[in-house]
Amino acid sequence: MILQYEGTRYQGWQKQTSTQNTIQGKLEDILTRMAGYSVEVHGAGRTDAGVHALFQVADFQLKGHSNRCSETLKDIEKKDLPRAILNYVNQYLPEDIRLSSVEEVPERFHSRLNAKEKIYCYRIHNALVADVFTRRYTYYFPQYLNIEAMREAAVQLCGTHDYQSFCTKKKLKKSTVRTIYDIEIKKVSNEIQFIYRGNGFLYHMVRILTGTLLQVGIGKLKATDMQEILEAKSREKAGELVPGCGLTLVEVRYS
Amino acid sequence: MILQYEGTRYQGWQKQTSTQNTIQGKLEDILTRMAGYSVEVHGAGRTDAGVHALFQVADFQLKGHSNRCSETLKDIEKKDLPRAILNYVNQYLPEDIRLSSVEEVPERFHSRLNAKEKIYCYRIHNALVADVFTRRYTYYFPQYLNIEAMREAAVQLCGTHDYQSFCTKKKLKKSTVRTIYDIEIKKVSNEIQFIYRGNGFLYHMVRILTGTLLQVGIGKLKATDMQEILEAKSREKAGELVPGCGLTLVEVRYS
Repeated sequence: MILQYEGTRYQGWQKQTSTQNTIQGKLEDILTRMAGYSVEVHGAGRTDAGVHALFQVADFQLKGHSNRCSETLKDIEKKDLPRAILNYVNQYLPEDIRLSSVEEVPERFHSRLNAKEKIYCYRIHNALVADVFTRRYTYYFPQYLNIEAMREAAVQLCGTHDYQSFCTKKKLKKSTVRTIYDIEIKKVSNEIQFIYRGNGFLYHMVRILTGTLLQVGIGKLKATDMQEILEAKSREKAGELVPGCGLTLVEVRYS
Repeated sequence: MILQYEGTRYQGWQKQTSTQNTIQGKLEDILTRMAGYSVEVHGAGRTDAGVHALFQVADFQLKGHSNRCSETLKDIEKKDLPRAILNYVNQYLPEDIRLSSVEEVPERFHSRLNAKEKIYCYRIHNALVADVFTRRYTYYFPQYLNIEAMREAAVQLCGTHDYQSFCTKKKLKKSTVRTIYDIEIKKVSNEIQFIYRGNGFLYHMVRILTGTLLQVGIGKLKATDMQEILEAKSREKAGELVPGCGLTLVEVRYS
């Protein structure tokens, strides 16, 4: 399924034992009620608390057409199944989460592991006065930003690197090497958009990259400092973590 | 002052005895606190409950540089006064109301009476699935709409007419003649925008005009019916009142 959500009210994508207020949790509750047995949902990007998605991909598995199916599901199966699931789930979802489409995929499809490319956009409202209409989707940053300097620095951050400096440590000792294909910096009226295209992103990575580029924008760091920060493999060298509200998962691409 | 607001949480622009939750009320509270005496605010457009403004104009009068001014105002006056008022008011406004600019005007300036033209935009989200990100600013209307038919009808509704059929009656027996210069209907991706430009609009007028055009869009009324509805001068002949959330005051023009 492809879905969109406004992350403002949620503790992020991933189900947690401490809270039921996650996107994954909401979807699993509804699909479980529909199926009559426990349904697990796997998402392509595990967005953090407050982060939005314009295009998130997630998969789940139904147990086929057996007798174990609930009455609800049996009623649904008489019709076009993906369309029926779309309508059923949207009917019960809160209005800040919406399925855009549902389609059948091969059994071995995995939303996250099969994804070849993810696109995130970080939006900055850069003006003297805050904006009422985009305030939930942007980070309000009124200081002057040197866009050309940020673009030069962005080039230095692309490629295949160990991005340990741009990641909040978790206990897991997995590889912190990723590839960023492109960082585009666009100015659209009073808004500056940082568009990241890569094969995957570490925990907090897009937000720390943006925080670092903002330091370049206000002149506290230089484009030539990027190499050193990457090589340091130390979180303290990079800029600060900017708020989740400015970040949106824009697309997930498969081969 | 020029200001913008998201109307979702408010009972409209106009101060009411029954509720303090109005845009005018919020502004008067803050300006009164600033000045140290009661300040009245007059707006160009009296937007209804739930209606937004991207560009609303409002005026107020301060009592000059006398001793009666409060300490706060005296501190403010030492600096650039309009800029200082902008910052003071924005500091106390809730985040869904923002002043964009403040400037001094001649004493006889009247935001509403001096306005030559107002532009309102009614936004429809026209797709199979509702939209998460524009849901607060659009009316979700999934049915197919014939845009060409609506454009033909819109032409019939422009000009100088008695718009009594397109107005919810209030007790006041004022003229219901207005001039609509132009109704533009734009399709932008899944959104249909109705942009009304006129010298003024009656109570609920833009929303009833839109409700009537939607009836044309779904084939229940024809473009040629518009003349008859205008001539009937009867509210029952026109389409229904569409929700306030889809409406935004976009601009107010002065000569």
